[in-house]
Amino acid sequence: MADPKILETFPNPAPQRDYVIEHTHHEFTSVCPMTGHPDFATITVRYVAGKNCVELKSLKLYFHAFRNEGIFFEAATNKICDDLGTALKPRSLTIIANWKARGGFSSVVTAEYSTKKKR
Amino acid sequence: MADPKILETFPNPAPQRDYVIEHTHHEFTSVCPMTGHPDFATITVRYVAGKNCVELKSLKLYFHAFRNEGIFFEAATNKICDDLGTALKPRSLTIIANWKARGGFSSVVTAEYSTKKKR
Amino acid sequence: MADPKILETFPNPAPQRDYVIEHTHHEFTSVCPMTGHPDFATITVRYVAGKNCVELKSLKLYFHAFRNEGIFFEAATNKICDDLGTALKPRSLTIIANWKARGGFSSVVTAEYSTKKKR
Amino acid sequence: MADPKILETFPNPAPQRDYVIEHTHHEFTSVCPMTGHPDFATITVRYVAGKNCVELKSLKLYFHAFRNEGIFFEAATNKICDDLGTALKPRSLTIIANWKARGGFSSVVTAEYSTKKKR
Amino acid sequence: MADPKILETFPNPAPQRDYVIEHTHHEFTSVCPMTGHPDFATITVRYVAGKNCVELKSLKLYFHAFRNEGIFFEAATNKICDDLGTALKPRSLTIIANWKARGGFSSVVTAEYSTKKKR
Amino acid sequence: MADPKILETFPNPAPQRDYVIEHTHHEFTSVCPMTGHPDFATITVRYVAGKNCVELKSLKLYFHAFRNEGIFFEAATNKICDDLGTALKPRSLTIIANWKARGGFSSVVTAEYSTKKKR
Amino acid sequence: MADPKILETFPNPAPQRDYVIEHTHHEFTSVCPMTGHPDFATITVRYVAGKNCVELKSLKLYFHAFRNEGIFFEAATNKICDDLGTALKPRSLTIIANWKARGGFSSVVTAEYSTKKKR
Amino acid sequence: MADPKILETFPNPAPQRDYVIEHTHHEFTSVCPMTGHPDFATITVRYVAGKNCVELKSLKLYFHAFRNEGIFFEAATNKICDDLGTALKPRSLTIIANWKARGGFSSVVTAEYSTKKKR
Amino acid sequence: MADPKILETFPNPAPQRDYVIEHTHHEFTSVCPMTGHPDFATITVRYVAGKNCVELKSLKLYFHAFRNEGIFFEAATNKICDDLGTALKPRSLTIIANWKARGGFSSVVTAEYSTKKKR
Amino acid sequence: MADPKILETFPNPAPQRDYVIEHTHHEFTSVCPMTGHPDFATITVRYVAGKNCVELKSLKLYFHAFRNEGIFFEAATNKICDDLGTALKPRSLTIIANWKARGGFSSVVTAEYSTKKKR
Repeated sequence: MADPKILETFPNPAPQRDYVIEHTHHEFTSVCPMTGHPDFATITVRYVAGKNCVELKSLKLYFHAFRNEGIFFEAATNKICDDLGTALKPRSLTIIANWKARGGFSSVVTAEYSTKKKR
Repeated sequence: MADPKILETFPNPAPQRDYVIEHTHHEFTSVCPMTGHPDFATITVRYVAGKNCVELKSLKLYFHAFRNEGIFFEAATNKICDDLGTALKPRSLTIIANWKARGGFSSVVTAEYSTKKKR
Repeated sequence: MADPKILETFPNPAPQRDYVIEHTHHEFTSVCPMTGHPDFATITVRYVAGKNCVELKSLKLYFHAFRNEGIFFEAATNKICDDLGTALKPRSLTIIANWKARGGFSSVVTAEYSTKKKR
Repeated sequence: MADPKILETFPNPAPQRDYVIEHTHHEFTSVCPMTGHPDFATITVRYVAGKNCVELKSLKLYFHAFRNEGIFFEAATNKICDDLGTALKPRSLTIIANWKARGGFSSVVTAEYSTKKKR
Repeated sequence: MADPKILETFPNPAPQRDYVIEHTHHEFTSVCPMTGHPDFATITVRYVAGKNCVELKSLKLYFHAFRNEGIFFEAATNKICDDLGTALKPRSLTIIANWKARGGFSSVVTAEYSTKKKR
Repeated sequence: MADPKILETFPNPAPQRDYVIEHTHHEFTSVCPMTGHPDFATITVRYVAGKNCVELKSLKLYFHAFRNEGIFFEAATNKICDDLGTALKPRSLTIIANWKARGGFSSVVTAEYSTKKKR
Repeated sequence: MADPKILETFPNPAPQRDYVIEHTHHEFTSVCPMTGHPDFATITVRYVAGKNCVELKSLKLYFHAFRNEGIFFEAATNKICDDLGTALKPRSLTIIANWKARGGFSSVVTAEYSTKKKR
Repeated sequence: MADPKILETFPNPAPQRDYVIEHTHHEFTSVCPMTGHPDFATITVRYVAGKNCVELKSLKLYFHAFRNEGIFFEAATNKICDDLGTALKPRSLTIIANWKARGGFSSVVTAEYSTKKKR
Repeated sequence: MADPKILETFPNPAPQRDYVIEHTHHEFTSVCPMTGHPDFATITVRYVAGKNCVELKSLKLYFHAFRNEGIFFEAATNKICDDLGTALKPRSLTIIANWKARGGFSSVVTAEYSTKKKR
Repeated sequence: MADPKILETFPNPAPQRDYVIEHTHHEFTSVCPMTGHPDFATITVRYVAGKNCVELKSLKLYFHAFRNEGIFFEAATNKICDDLGTALKPRSLTIIANWKARGGFSSVVTAEYSTKKKR
């Protein structure tokens, strides 16, 4: 499974300001755990940094690590949200995963990171 | 008539979080009850899951079951909303049905599921 | 002048729910009362039905009845709003008329139906 | 300089209703006061009419009158806003001027008319 | 490093009104400080002017001065925000930097200028 | 029926050269002779002029004259080709009529004018 | 199986001229003979008429007749080509079937009618 | 009238090779000689240079000189073709003038330069 | 390495006709042999069948088999061309591989199958 | 000046076949020799390889070397054509340079490599 330790960070160059950073990865691919067929997605990471920013090359390698993993759309999106939340401790964080059409469907799963657990 | 028992579910992998799942089906077709001519639509199912998520292949088969049914735009959209609401008991649910142009018109019908009845 | 009696209705199949119906007609044409030249528009009817929905074929015939009428953009949009408001007694109703470019201008006129008169 | 007296009006056909009229002119051109080179813009006039509506042909002639005027983006947008505000006494009015790319830049200037002066 | 003294201003022609000026530069390029490879961005400057507006040619020259600078996405966006904020003392200011795809990622960094420092 | 005498011409300003003139009318409408419903088309007139060019305003009025005529796609296209061929005696002439979707179909009919009759 | 007898014709209004008629149907659907899942296509019929033209409403009904037939892409395209060739005896005829994406593939099958058999 | 003497040239840097240069001007405007209303066009100059290439800034000034000239579409296109042909003596030259929609029409006029006069 | 034995065929339903079959796969991915990073491509297979057609599901599995192979753009395209040529013995065959942007480049490699070896 | 020695090659994996390789670089930038302002282009290299193919990373570095060079559109395109022609000795080679709009113009320069000198 994609190891969150791959993720590297660097110090936020403007911590005095709440500004928005948005990275969109156009080449995400994983494997359907039911059929073994490949799935493709565009993943957007949108966050307001706290002390650290995510280093882009390490984020790419983290996403590459899903290439041969069998994982559902909903679970992959939530794992990315949890791993980046833990690594960055951001002021806010949203993950938008846009899954390519399969069987006549396209799907979008959107999760927000929160330090407060719910229900 | 499309039987809601076709719909299958699997446990929500992140029930502690309110995240949004959106499936868009690009291949919906039914039949006009007046003329017998085919109608075509793109159906978006957008929801925040409760305990369960809808399984995508079963959702496709449920939509395929409308193929030879005579049903109005407004009625089809509300039936899908009711059937998915009953099957998923979601925290929230919206159905957006985008009907292809017919006689110079295109139509969009949008319904939200609510546990509270109105008026 | 386009006669609102052309408009037919059928019973709202889900009166217990406030859902949005939007019909967009792509083939509206009338005549400029100043020059006699044809005008073209796309007309969107967006409403929350009360007891009745508008029947689509009758709506098409109602729009066709403007074909040889001389009428200004602003007046046509407001007449459609008034006629549909009277015929449907909707919970809410908006008319968006998107007039094709003429003399280097394109125009959009948007009117909302209200049971309360203003000023 | 473009003379606001060119602007003609006609009585608002639905003064009892607050509805939105939006005219977009795709052929505005003026001259840069620094370099003498032509500037091109798309100008949107969006307003809620009071007693009168602007007559479209007179609006075109008013815009044509800028053709050989040397005027900055910011000043042209504000002059149009002032002239139409004075001529129409609208319930509300917004001017959006979308200036075509020049030196690698495209620019949008947006002004709202108000009867209350500011600062 | 791009020198903010390059930025020139001219008096706001309508200081009595809060109107929005938006300049988008389509030809920004700098250099990645890690790899030395070029980066490309579209930079949008959106502001409500105070006493002064930024002169467009000087803004172009200021952006050109980044051409051979090694600077991170996050730092460049914040420097532009700081330099324009200092030069213009605007009523409000937002910088949106849209970085072209690199390694399968596209990125958007958005910063707002404020006279109040944060945390 | 649209009268070809509406068509006016002016002398070709460059008869020494075979150059191509192409006028595309975006607002053609006629009536289906079977159902009485309106049809809409975009008509392209592409020709190499002989002694005369067609005057654009008269071409518009000629096309407007089809507004209430019942005529099939194939017949309208061939009539336009014949009428313009007779009026202009062009070195070459092609009519491309692009009919808007009706009953799920869009149609294109293309005819070339020739002084030689065929079969 | 879709019966070619559904196809009706009317006399070519300009048999003296070789002009091109192209009808594109945007709502073709049949069933995959292997999986029973629906297939969707856009079908273009491009021909030069001989004595007769195909009547558009009958062509629509002929295409509707494929709705519940199990048939491969290649076979459906060739059957349409054969049936229209037999019904119209056209001077030339091409069928272009553009099949919607399925399993990550989109497909186009193109066949031309000829009175001469090959190989 | 736009004076061809405005056009400047520089020596072709690769006269040993027949290569194609294509400049497209997106900001051409002239005046209709009948109505006095502005016309807008995109002008493409495509040529194979002989001894000289056209200098781009001078070409812009030459096009700007049409700004207040009353001239027909057909005549403007042929004048540009003649003036550039005379100034450049190119191995080949084509002018494509794409006139913006007016009265529901858009027009394209295309002329090729030739040293041999015709008819 | 992707094994051409995965490819299955079925008998051409219209061998008497030279018609064109084109399958475009939107989800091809392999690995760069230099860097180990993933490459993405859209692969079009265009052919005129001889005795057999390629079965679409087997073609998908054949393409999936490249997922973890290190192979250059040029070599992958030629291998697909060779493998399909051998399996189908088509009357003609073209492979068009459209590789997604990498390092600021996008690439297209196009190969045609021929029974005759060259040079 | 960009040194053609930067270009590296690797052996053509399918020299027995004439297939087409097309690399499009979306990030080319050089400097105008007149004004010192940056120019931007998309450069397409289309060739049929002889014994060697161009290595993509070296091609990127070769293009990067133009970043601070003052060079005209026509000269840059021909230099790239000459340098790649010399390095690859291809069976055929075309360079298409698509220069971004400047002063209201966009430009395309297209050159083909030939071993035979002309005129």
